[in-house]
Amino acid sequence: MKDQLTYAMIGGGIGASIGQVHRRAISLDGRATIVAGALSSTPEKSIKSAQELGLDPDRSYATFQELFEREASREDRVDFVSIVTPNDTHYPIARLALEHGFHVVLDKPATHTSMQAQELEELAAAKGLVCCVTYNYTGYPMIRQARAMVRDGVLGTIRKVLLEYHQGWLASDLESTGHKQASWRVDPAKAGLGGALGDIGTHAENLISFVTGLTMKSVYANLHAFVPNRPLDDDVSVLIQYQGGAHGVLTASQICIGETNGISIRIYGDQGGLSWYHASPNDLRVTMLDGNATTYTRGEPGLHDDATFSSHTPPGHPEGYLEAFANIYRGAIDAILLQTSGSDESQLARLTPRIDAGRQGVRFIEKCVESAQKNTRINWV
Amino acid sequence: MKDQLTYAMIGGGIGASIGQVHRRAISLDGRATIVAGALSSTPEKSIKSAQELGLDPDRSYATFQELFEREASREDRVDFVSIVTPNDTHYPIARLALEHGFHVVLDKPATHTSMQAQELEELAAAKGLVCCVTYNYTGYPMIRQARAMVRDGVLGTIRKVLLEYHQGWLASDLESTGHKQASWRVDPAKAGLGGALGDIGTHAENLISFVTGLTMKSVYANLHAFVPNRPLDDDVSVLIQYQGGAHGVLTASQICIGETNGISIRIYGDQGGLSWYHASPNDLRVTMLDGNATTYTRGEPGLHDDATFSSHTPPGHPEGYLEAFANIYRGAIDAILLQTSGSDESQLARLTPRIDAGRQGVRFIEKCVESAQKNTRINWV
Amino acid sequence: MKDQLTYAMIGGGIGASIGQVHRRAISLDGRATIVAGALSSTPEKSIKSAQELGLDPDRSYATFQELFEREASREDRVDFVSIVTPNDTHYPIARLALEHGFHVVLDKPATHTSMQAQELEELAAAKGLVCCVTYNYTGYPMIRQARAMVRDGVLGTIRKVLLEYHQGWLASDLESTGHKQASWRVDPAKAGLGGALGDIGTHAENLISFVTGLTMKSVYANLHAFVPNRPLDDDVSVLIQYQGGAHGVLTASQICIGETNGISIRIYGDQGGLSWYHASPNDLRVTMLDGNATTYTRGEPGLHDDATFSSHTPPGHPEGYLEAFANIYRGAIDAILLQTSGSDESQLARLTPRIDAGRQGVRFIEKCVESAQKNTRINWV
Amino acid sequence: MKDQLTYAMIGGGIGASIGQVHRRAISLDGRATIVAGALSSTPEKSIKSAQELGLDPDRSYATFQELFEREASREDRVDFVSIVTPNDTHYPIARLALEHGFHVVLDKPATHTSMQAQELEELAAAKGLVCCVTYNYTGYPMIRQARAMVRDGVLGTIRKVLLEYHQGWLASDLESTGHKQASWRVDPAKAGLGGALGDIGTHAENLISFVTGLTMKSVYANLHAFVPNRPLDDDVSVLIQYQGGAHGVLTASQICIGETNGISIRIYGDQGGLSWYHASPNDLRVTMLDGNATTYTRGEPGLHDDATFSSHTPPGHPEGYLEAFANIYRGAIDAILLQTSGSDESQLARLTPRIDAGRQGVRFIEKCVESAQKNTRINWV
Repeated sequence: MKDQLTYAMIGGGIGASIGQVHRRAISLDGRATIVAGALSSTPEKSIKSAQELGLDPDRSYATFQELFEREASREDRVDFVSIVTPNDTHYPIARLALEHGFHVVLDKPATHTSMQAQELEELAAAKGLVCCVTYNYTGYPMIRQARAMVRDGVLGTIRKVLLEYHQGWLASDLESTGHKQASWRVDPAKAGLGGALGDIGTHAENLISFVTGLTMKSVYANLHAFVPNRPLDDDVSVLIQYQGGAHGVLTASQICIGETNGISIRIYGDQGGLSWYHASPNDLRVTMLDGNATTYTRGEPGLHDDATFSSHTPPGHPEGYLEAFANIYRGAIDAILLQTSGSDESQLARLTPRIDAGRQGVRFIEKCVESAQKNTRINWV
Repeated sequence: MKDQLTYAMIGGGIGASIGQVHRRAISLDGRATIVAGALSSTPEKSIKSAQELGLDPDRSYATFQELFEREASREDRVDFVSIVTPNDTHYPIARLALEHGFHVVLDKPATHTSMQAQELEELAAAKGLVCCVTYNYTGYPMIRQARAMVRDGVLGTIRKVLLEYHQGWLASDLESTGHKQASWRVDPAKAGLGGALGDIGTHAENLISFVTGLTMKSVYANLHAFVPNRPLDDDVSVLIQYQGGAHGVLTASQICIGETNGISIRIYGDQGGLSWYHASPNDLRVTMLDGNATTYTRGEPGLHDDATFSSHTPPGHPEGYLEAFANIYRGAIDAILLQTSGSDESQLARLTPRIDAGRQGVRFIEKCVESAQKNTRINWV
Repeated sequence: MKDQLTYAMIGGGIGASIGQVHRRAISLDGRATIVAGALSSTPEKSIKSAQELGLDPDRSYATFQELFEREASREDRVDFVSIVTPNDTHYPIARLALEHGFHVVLDKPATHTSMQAQELEELAAAKGLVCCVTYNYTGYPMIRQARAMVRDGVLGTIRKVLLEYHQGWLASDLESTGHKQASWRVDPAKAGLGGALGDIGTHAENLISFVTGLTMKSVYANLHAFVPNRPLDDDVSVLIQYQGGAHGVLTASQICIGETNGISIRIYGDQGGLSWYHASPNDLRVTMLDGNATTYTRGEPGLHDDATFSSHTPPGHPEGYLEAFANIYRGAIDAILLQTSGSDESQLARLTPRIDAGRQGVRFIEKCVESAQKNTRINWV
Repeated sequence: MKDQLTYAMIGGGIGASIGQVHRRAISLDGRATIVAGALSSTPEKSIKSAQELGLDPDRSYATFQELFEREASREDRVDFVSIVTPNDTHYPIARLALEHGFHVVLDKPATHTSMQAQELEELAAAKGLVCCVTYNYTGYPMIRQARAMVRDGVLGTIRKVLLEYHQGWLASDLESTGHKQASWRVDPAKAGLGGALGDIGTHAENLISFVTGLTMKSVYANLHAFVPNRPLDDDVSVLIQYQGGAHGVLTASQICIGETNGISIRIYGDQGGLSWYHASPNDLRVTMLDGNATTYTRGEPGLHDDATFSSHTPPGHPEGYLEAFANIYRGAIDAILLQTSGSDESQLARLTPRIDAGRQGVRFIEKCVESAQKNTRINWV
């Protein structure tokens, strides 16, 4: 079986911001090469974007429909497609990709409705295809160390989870200035039900699930749009109850001036507590009930394999966002290779979130919006 | 008018923990001397405690009733009384003190019910006496700098307030081990309606009010007791709506292993944001909408007078808990001197919280308990 | 034997800055009361300063000579004198105090020459008197924890010590503006041989000695005055060799803009390393050879008694400069009481630096100046 | 002119550590592809390593001599060679590469002697070839921001520079355990004159030069080997004098247990000071003489172009070691393209260190070793 994969990208052309991040994350480990694309919303821009990336003109497609149809008939067809378009187009594109037999890596939130995500999940299962969702923050080695320690019971029974994802870039009416990234994020037609909730709140929900494995029982959400005339929320506060008695406080906001991408996760059990901050992603602090406070650092000996295998460089060399993002794709590529070859489980494949996590993320949006609209606590099922 | 005052302490004898903190906070600035006391719950322990402090046996009283009665008839009667007993006795002691014409400094939460606090407020006003509440965290110079900046409009219109007060010392069933400080705090008869809510949640509520001046509109509170069989909450999460549209998230918990006394305050307006952390109390970080991020440090030139006058040492010399606590008493003593002399307002007197803030704190407890019991949002008025 | 002492202060009157710090440090623990003083350099200012402090006019002296003579003849003579005058007067005042039989607490640097310090040391010994030097940074509980761990061999054989003491307040020509604190510090007649070297370099030297117990073998020092026309150094870099093979790098500077009082101590042995920063004085980080990294925090259980007994408040309540300074006086008072009563050793008395440490500090100044003048390495003995 | 380059790697095969870092750094930006290699010290391992990387067997060479000879005769010859072998082979390989007309990117320290580096410098100039040295820490955006601010005079005249590079991984006798990375670094035949001095001290020297542009006047160096029987230094302390009166303290050590890759740079001028720490590489703190303290953050608006162009992701997304390393190669590739095309200067090309910086680094090693041996200050010229 070949080790080196090829892929096509949908979206991520000229003027996009996240497309290049995905491409860099993939190229960091050098295991997959972009060879095809339908990169922009108009055929002209798609062609131009493909030229800039040096794609073979023959595999530079005007639309995603054309891409899937023609790639499917090539002998050297791409191994997977990476979908980095605005939220509203995730579902139709991913569906068509799966129908044509392509593995899929999908940006988050996976779809507009949890029903759509469920369809994708069932379709991928039926076709025997991998469908991953780029919850990229789960790629940090020390987040994976946290997950391993929590699931190994180091903290005892989990009682309380505090998850913050705070940004400040939408504190002013950026959308009225023609700012492309701001504009689609506050437009319900493109972004879906949630503003900050969909854009970053889903990352927050996923981080809790990824690390703790806790199952939600109910949510009470407050959603606000502090910037006048903004049709979607820019600030989210959710009180969560979990099966088994744990409680969570999740706040996600895009109006916190001074915060650029401030994610933190704090988890308290009856035996210990841990904290992780995005600003220093290579450290994980764990304190036990007896007061012993240890700082674990990426790359050092003695960490869980999940963290060790997710590391790129020796300890003390700061790893960040791109390395973490690369780990998501390392796992996706492993998963695709395993699916193709039927070989054994891979550490990294197991850690990359799949479409079921994507479905849960969309459901979280739906439940929070319902809670906020009714101003009451809403059960998860 | 004399500058040097005398005071009596009620509570704070052998085995107590907060009494010595108050005494050190008072003695730090050397403006008041303890000369009388009813220091413990039994006459024997009171006498013994007074001996340890070197009090004149003649002014070492067995009960607070005896203290007020006899001190009131002395020519050299104490100027004020400091009440540091468990919560349940605050009201009767403070009431009797005021009735006998003594200025009062009262630990928090002020009383068991907001009605009681209102009585004290009215009684103090009627008698022309000062009645302060030791919300000691408001004494930090950089909290006062934050207050000045927020109230001067530096951050613009306030949108969001995040207040955390997290401890871990009650993560296990300490009360069953005979731990005195734990035991009364989880006993409704002594602590009142709130556990963590009353003990530290009221500090959190007060910090928001002190810094922002915002008025509450409604609260939605979750209260939990994670330690089995604990009759009062040890974990609090409150979503607050303020008059004018601001929102707050207040969390207070005593089960967060690894947190010793983790207080943070973050405030976001439409023009800027600020953050302050108890772990580095001499710094205040302020970021403006244009991205300019400034760290203000205690003692440096250019701070607001409220911060400058609250400073004890040059910049770079860490000031902490006791200096902040001392500032509360500096203000209380100034207030008492002003009340006596009728002279002009003092910067520090203005900043020490009075019984009206104490009443609001107790009302916050009541509203949160009501919200948690009914599992619904409760209006403030 | 009485527990409550009285003291006289020499210096520290109106316009002085360090006098009030000493008084607050003493009053924090309430074990000694100021009752006499010769507080300023002129009789008029001395009287005025004494009035402000509320001293008995009868014990408010015009000169230190008068103070010692008259106090020595009183039945209620002060127990000790605290000397907080500029450096040049330390020696004559301390000498006279000891000759009159008073215990002495002396600011640093102890004297102008190590010979003078040795005289004081011998005089105190001959008279059976306590003579302490306020190397106040040794009062931090976590510095004392570091000392205990290093001396207990936790780090193995010490190899390397890094000590920084960086300030920025003398980065400009403050002395030409009439700034009193700046002026005497850059005047050789008042400050002695060293500028930054004497003012803060001696603290740095003492911190290494206090924590490690290492004995110097040789020094190579660079001294610079970056501000034009400044007659004494404002920047110090010293490479130290210790008996037994350890090496040290000591930097002390008063031209580091952005540093207010930036002290750090880092010690590396063959089994582990530790670091402590003045900006977060309640934490001590220790890492062992196997990578285990633990943060010890003031007040938590399990610390060495030296740290525990030096703590004033529960963990999580920031303690700072004044609490550390207070610990120096707690130890001095204990030492005086022990000397008087002949009773057992006290934990705190043992930790307060005495005149022998002061002598070593002055010798360090002398050796560094010699090395800088000759631009060569100088042996310690 | 083509935008996409090809390169060969010398060294970096199986068992090497830094080779993959270089390859990832190159692939991150996707502008150059590895197509040839002489990857290991034996032909067998070279072939095997090439297979693992998926190189064309025809361009997988047994020796670097073979590589240069055969690549030079190909029409599609590689554009540049990346040399990541142990120090002792840098010079002969780079020399041969330049002689065959290949651009070179060379790991540090560039050569064993400064004479060798000078030869390479002259050879590259004569041939019109680019010869870069991977002083990778200069690739951090906020180091480049610091450089721009210092050179624009924001801090005024530079007085003092403090540069630390501290590791702990060689605190024990790792070389005797067969650890490959440790073994060659402590072997004078392979590593050259310096141990820690050559391995990380040269990075430290280069960082000062890169940021400040200061020219050395003299050095006084202490070199120690704390681990018994280690033939090269593992700990370095250097006091530097610069032309124009600035002073520097440079410490580099590999025995600091608890430090993994602790680099810091602090620079003080007469108008302001700055500090940067490798542990939080996205922040730069600058304080002005008036006390104003600003934290600049990677990616935010308003930074110098040198920093902005060196950024890969939006602010708040931690960038680290690989992104910085990638910036070195982005500049090298720009420089090669410019050399080929004769087009205008590129921001990034200008910032990647060339062989003249490499020569200076080797000279720094030579001067420090001379100073340590003679135990005296040594002039730079």
